[in-house]
Amino acid sequence: MKKIYIVGLGPGNEAMMTAAAREAIDKSSVVVGYEVYVDLIRPLLAGKTVATTPMKREVDRCQMALEYALAGETVSMVCSGDAGVYGMAGVMMEVAREHPEVEMEVVCGITAACSAAAVLGAPLIHDFAVISLSDLLTPWEKIEKRLRLAADADFVICLYNPSSKKRSDYLQRACDLVLQHQSPETCCGYVRNIGREGEQATLCTLSELRMAKVDMFTTVIIGNSQTKVINGRLVTPRGYKNV
Amino acid sequence: MKKIYIVGLGPGNEAMMTAAAREAIDKSSVVVGYEVYVDLIRPLLAGKTVATTPMKREVDRCQMALEYALAGETVSMVCSGDAGVYGMAGVMMEVAREHPEVEMEVVCGITAACSAAAVLGAPLIHDFAVISLSDLLTPWEKIEKRLRLAADADFVICLYNPSSKKRSDYLQRACDLVLQHQSPETCCGYVRNIGREGEQATLCTLSELRMAKVDMFTTVIIGNSQTKVINGRLVTPRGYKNV
Repeated sequence: MKKIYIVGLGPGNEAMMTAAAREAIDKSSVVVGYEVYVDLIRPLLAGKTVATTPMKREVDRCQMALEYALAGETVSMVCSGDAGVYGMAGVMMEVAREHPEVEMEVVCGITAACSAAAVLGAPLIHDFAVISLSDLLTPWEKIEKRLRLAADADFVICLYNPSSKKRSDYLQRACDLVLQHQSPETCCGYVRNIGREGEQATLCTLSELRMAKVDMFTTVIIGNSQTKVINGRLVTPRGYKNV
Repeated sequence: MKKIYIVGLGPGNEAMMTAAAREAIDKSSVVVGYEVYVDLIRPLLAGKTVATTPMKREVDRCQMALEYALAGETVSMVCSGDAGVYGMAGVMMEVAREHPEVEMEVVCGITAACSAAAVLGAPLIHDFAVISLSDLLTPWEKIEKRLRLAADADFVICLYNPSSKKRSDYLQRACDLVLQHQSPETCCGYVRNIGREGEQATLCTLSELRMAKVDMFTTVIIGNSQTKVINGRLVTPRGYKNV
């Protein structure tokens, strides 16, 4: 049987991996991934063929994985967070489109929305939207529309890829769009290096977030009209009365 | 130290739990939860005090957990999926509002959006919105507005609590709202009993979804304008060209 596991490793420390992720890697003779993430699981890779590519070479990485699988190897394609949320599961299935004989199994990991929420408190307790600010593959106009409508709908909003060198003002632009519908005092937070060394969490208002310095290792959560701070934690109520 | 872990167990099989969740339960002398979920982890509970309440008694459950913690016990409050997504983390922090001396740590689990997506393929690869159709604690008008705006923004939409005995036509109503912006041929899917015995996945179009029979153990995913079916899997592209 030709098989590729597409495995989410979670935020990056082993305690946050699922047993299923570990087991998939265990069963695989070949592990393929972006070099930084492969390094996170070195202790699990003894005796396996390890194939890495640099960042932004996702299609190449999938073609490598497919070739190994077609040659009869059991392959784990690993990525950080959840393989199905801005992860490798989609592009892997697209690349293997002509090879239905290759079985593909997605093994979930903890995505940054959930791990950032846990560090900050409980901001995603009710309806929320997840939006990437990267316009590498999405027109900025579409991102803008999603931000505006998500704010109008009073979703809590989780932002992936909030900034990069080339897009240093994108978070500010995003906040300006949300400010058309939400108060400048809206409770927000962001976390850098979730679950890794140097993890750093910050609570702030929406108007402070607008001026925040964040980088590509940061996940941002913008509260909705109900989100509040309780004992230093960001909490969105489910609506329980009398609490 | 007075401590409560709020622990997400994931979809319900032990392989999908994180090591951190297991460790939190291990360190706890008391485990509190809804009886059905506590039953899922019986083998981990030997020698511990176990306190359960029936469904919909979330506030009582949190008060129980708080009392044990104030009495010096280390407590794990367990729930299915992720504790921070329609889970117990928020209400626990609200109930313990007057007791900042009780440390609270949220331990992530795999939420149903992610586990359903993995079963169906890779539908959440790009921006998405998560909406609960339960109007127990949210006015239906607010749910309606979120559905309309999420569809207009071309988000993939994941629905929690798509139906119950009292709300048997809610999924149909939700589909009708999405149909104002998306084609009847939009690729959709739903999964019942994710990760448990009797797991059942179905792919369908949006117009078929409108007529589907789903229950409260089902998670629904409505694709966006780009979502397609590749070799029987639901896939939303990230926008990679030439694939």
